[in-house]
Amino acid sequence: MKIIGEKINGTRKRVAQAIAERDAEFIQNLARRQAEAGADWLDVNAGTHPDREPDDLIWLIESIQSVVDTPLSLDSANPRALKEAIKAINKTPMINSISGEPERLTGIMPIVAEHGCPVIALAMDEKKIPETSTKRFEVIAKIIKETRALGIPDSNLYFDPLAMTISTDTRSALIAFETMRCVRQEYPNAHLTIGLSNISYGLPARSFVNRYFLSLAIQAGLDSAILDPLDREIQAAILTTELILGRDKHCLNFIRSSRKGLFEKAVD
Amino acid sequence: MKIIGEKINGTRKRVAQAIAERDAEFIQNLARRQAEAGADWLDVNAGTHPDREPDDLIWLIESIQSVVDTPLSLDSANPRALKEAIKAINKTPMINSISGEPERLTGIMPIVAEHGCPVIALAMDEKKIPETSTKRFEVIAKIIKETRALGIPDSNLYFDPLAMTISTDTRSALIAFETMRCVRQEYPNAHLTIGLSNISYGLPARSFVNRYFLSLAIQAGLDSAILDPLDREIQAAILTTELILGRDKHCLNFIRSSRKGLFEKAVD
Repeated sequence: MKIIGEKINGTRKRVAQAIAERDAEFIQNLARRQAEAGADWLDVNAGTHPDREPDDLIWLIESIQSVVDTPLSLDSANPRALKEAIKAINKTPMINSISGEPERLTGIMPIVAEHGCPVIALAMDEKKIPETSTKRFEVIAKIIKETRALGIPDSNLYFDPLAMTISTDTRSALIAFETMRCVRQEYPNAHLTIGLSNISYGLPARSFVNRYFLSLAIQAGLDSAILDPLDREIQAAILTTELILGRDKHCLNFIRSSRKGLFEKAVD
Repeated sequence: MKIIGEKINGTRKRVAQAIAERDAEFIQNLARRQAEAGADWLDVNAGTHPDREPDDLIWLIESIQSVVDTPLSLDSANPRALKEAIKAINKTPMINSISGEPERLTGIMPIVAEHGCPVIALAMDEKKIPETSTKRFEVIAKIIKETRALGIPDSNLYFDPLAMTISTDTRSALIAFETMRCVRQEYPNAHLTIGLSNISYGLPARSFVNRYFLSLAIQAGLDSAILDPLDREIQAAILTTELILGRDKHCLNFIRSSRKGLFEKAVD
């Protein structure tokens, strides 16, 4: 299970403030803590100011790279910002994200192909988010046709089947799981990822929904997720699910994490 | 999801003492609390004294029936005890359990057939617990051939695929899940059940293993389980899993349980 740490996101108020004030220490602290918690990539989102985005993104990248060497995930739909940012980067970044929207395909895919980046691809097109797993899978099939034409290997693709909020449609998780199963079957070398924040929106006890959704999604084929790597309940969900699914040899990760106190009631 | 409450079990020291001392209040308290927590059956196990078993079982049944009307699950491999006990019972009980062992089949199946009892059937025979899901499913197919011959409807069968401890074989849960999927596919009217106590044996943080195992098992087709209905984390796992799997209309059970405080940190 690969983790994309979600915390450096300029749409969050406190992070936006740190970006505006060039408070490198705040950002570096988020980077360091996520890296120590085992994040495989750190998502970097500069926020919602298109004119400032390239500068902000480069400042974020340089601040982060000076303290950790975890690869970054550049979270932007702006080809210009991505092209600039990629010049400042040490390790090949993940790109977050493309989708079936033609302008994101034509604007961002060449960058992905040129730099050999892993890329998150959302199961939606210019119209909207399809309501059925069949239609989401059609979008995925369309994207993979384009990526293959550009020579991008399936193993660099991280498909996000999109988890919509359960409170407005109780079939939301099922649709995501079914989409995942289709991708697993048809494109075994492609990866699956998901953002954990939507699924529980509008419900109480959100952290319970998030942690069990994640566990069930792993059983449905998920092998990566965008989440808060500092959340102990989420860490526990991943470790326990991998143990149960026979992916923790001699139970070593589980036992080691238990010794470190992960499963204790105290929350950080 | 149907719950078989496990707490009235004479192999537990405190319950054995209550049986020996004919402490009805202790037993009735366990019965009442499990019924209030929503148990669909109360498992009744009189312990390990074959000569005393019929008397003890009847005393337990009468004590429990005088305070709750939840159906019982008679947990015994002793045909004589079952035949006696069934005379004292008000509502058709579940029988726990038969297996592929010829003497359990021939001794207990006629009782099940005569009284129209739901019955738990373990995926093991006289030799041992099969190590693969294919072989467990073969035992199940053999049992169902016999039950059908006796006119027992598949819908009265609760197959237990057997969850062995993960600490001695990391594939244990996978074997159980795969067995479940086979039963779901081949015998769609049969039910699946499981005892939650074995899977985490010998591991730390057992309650984490139990709760995620249960959630993943529900996704694999489990529709009933033998467990402690008073365990809030287990209740939360079931409610959250049913919500995610689209089985909680308008999220009402989840929201109602949250209002009652189920998801709060406090543990009873």
